[in-house]
Amino acid sequence: MGTLKDLGESGIIQMLRALTRERMPGLALGIGDDCAMFSFYDDAYYYLVSTDMLMERVHFNVGQMTPYQLGLRSLAVNLSDIAAMGGTPIASFLSLALPPHLDESWIKGFSDGYAYLTNLHHTALLGGDTVRSNGDIVVSVTILGKVLKGDEKIRSAAQSGDLIVVSGTLGDSCAGRLIADERNRRIEAHGTEVQTHLLQRYYEPSPRLALGQALSKIPGVHAMMDISDGLVSDLPKILSLSHVDATIQLDKLPISEELEAECSMRTKWSSETMAVTGGEDYELLFTISEGDLDQLPEPDRKSGIPPLTVIGRVGSMQGDEPVIHWERKKRHVTRGFRPYNHFR
Amino acid sequence: MGTLKDLGESGIIQMLRALTRERMPGLALGIGDDCAMFSFYDDAYYYLVSTDMLMERVHFNVGQMTPYQLGLRSLAVNLSDIAAMGGTPIASFLSLALPPHLDESWIKGFSDGYAYLTNLHHTALLGGDTVRSNGDIVVSVTILGKVLKGDEKIRSAAQSGDLIVVSGTLGDSCAGRLIADERNRRIEAHGTEVQTHLLQRYYEPSPRLALGQALSKIPGVHAMMDISDGLVSDLPKILSLSHVDATIQLDKLPISEELEAECSMRTKWSSETMAVTGGEDYELLFTISEGDLDQLPEPDRKSGIPPLTVIGRVGSMQGDEPVIHWERKKRHVTRGFRPYNHFR
Repeated sequence: MGTLKDLGESGIIQMLRALTRERMPGLALGIGDDCAMFSFYDDAYYYLVSTDMLMERVHFNVGQMTPYQLGLRSLAVNLSDIAAMGGTPIASFLSLALPPHLDESWIKGFSDGYAYLTNLHHTALLGGDTVRSNGDIVVSVTILGKVLKGDEKIRSAAQSGDLIVVSGTLGDSCAGRLIADERNRRIEAHGTEVQTHLLQRYYEPSPRLALGQALSKIPGVHAMMDISDGLVSDLPKILSLSHVDATIQLDKLPISEELEAECSMRTKWSSETMAVTGGEDYELLFTISEGDLDQLPEPDRKSGIPPLTVIGRVGSMQGDEPVIHWERKKRHVTRGFRPYNHFR
Repeated sequence: MGTLKDLGESGIIQMLRALTRERMPGLALGIGDDCAMFSFYDDAYYYLVSTDMLMERVHFNVGQMTPYQLGLRSLAVNLSDIAAMGGTPIASFLSLALPPHLDESWIKGFSDGYAYLTNLHHTALLGGDTVRSNGDIVVSVTILGKVLKGDEKIRSAAQSGDLIVVSGTLGDSCAGRLIADERNRRIEAHGTEVQTHLLQRYYEPSPRLALGQALSKIPGVHAMMDISDGLVSDLPKILSLSHVDATIQLDKLPISEELEAECSMRTKWSSETMAVTGGEDYELLFTISEGDLDQLPEPDRKSGIPPLTVIGRVGSMQGDEPVIHWERKKRHVTRGFRPYNHFR
């Protein structure tokens, strides 16, 4: 037997799934989507649960991210999973492992950041656990949400012929992380306006709840998920579960002016590569039947709806495994990408 | 401002509570009991959520506990919180932070242990997260359960005059941990039969679900919780929330033959001290009106009902703060105990 490097996250999940039950009355979706989904009795809603763990020196560095940003981000990534189902958050549960030498002001900053998104999205903090750590800080958040039955958007519902749409811009968070790594930099530190923007997109992602809820009301929107690992890692999850292929127009990828500006200053940075492989944008990725495109909501800063961009199309599956065909200006491009293995 | 050593777990929780909302429609209990409790619409049930984090080198040592035992224990401590409300578990969510060098057989063992209790108690594993750790292993479990409205047993319901009852025996787990620490010992390692028993009580706690559910049907059972931090730390939680005092008869504490035997071999070990201060027994602690004592279930190994012991009585609160009066053979004993601060 090998180590976790070989097994990877999906191997671990498969092992656990093989051994445990995954049944309960009212269960609609178990492991494998953004959230688990179930209903109680003849309630009008499905309830959604998702959980994420953030690990020091893997997902964040205390020298870079302020406690406020870490608190905000810990909830944001979970809210994004609720958004990805078209749901509304109800309550969260927060567990923290903290080293005893940590300053009291650290927990105050963290709490402020966590509270900001808790209060903004009208969720309740209902429980958790606080334990001592001898080393790294660990944050684990579990979120409970709901969605009206019939409005839920799941990964396995993409249909051949659907257009593929993404919200906001891609790759900003990846650039922000690289900038932060380069100089151990926080938002507060000096830098160009462009860099400040990219750092903020990394440190303070905006969960697309308003958009997710708007899309949940459009029957023509079929499959949906959020982009946490990057387009090249996440889109195949929709394709596998829906048994379809996809064609992506690389020249249509929504790339921010800021990312373009930063990349133009650096010979080794490609905005296209960042938009395809960079994770942690927490934008929504969904498929929609072409005839329903006019139902998509207009961008509206006030209600938090970002611009939407059609980046490709779903096709029927040609081989045994789903494939992404990459095109630029409608011409085929050969690109080799590998899904990211966190344990490598 | 000080560090977390000074602030402690309750300080952290207070800070978070002051900053965040703790309201949602249908909320019956937020932070402060074994589980959060809420209902959806006019459903007959309350839903229960609890979450616990286990940290390497704080809650377990990989050299001592087998992966199987850690997997089992991770779920057991959460199931115990559901038992403490009189509830039935429905589903769990498991997050793991694991170092990449970990052997595949480790995760297989962990999964087997987790699956054992999952399947035994008919719960479903519905989701989680798997992340890389650069150091310690972290396990975070969130559990969802339910209890028929009216059957829930909470901490704040103790009444003056109630008898105080505890299930099983106290202090075994504490002794087991000390034995394990002494010689870096696992259950498999050589040792006396007595030591094997005590180690097992530490490594493989039995969540008292059958007992909790039986007690939930007895209206005369008022307050209930599980003993995770030790009687001296946990009983005051019931007393504070119920605004009552308590008298505990030290000579009535249920102490196992095994613990007595082990203590008789060691000059510095006191079974009484272990029973009062030792944590992690995961037994149930509850109060019951004297007239309903005959309704308590008989011990039954097959259905998993342990023996029950009356150890004291609830009294009305005399001062500003709740007090535990310790007695031995009905005579007052002066004992000074301090609640444990994990960050010290």
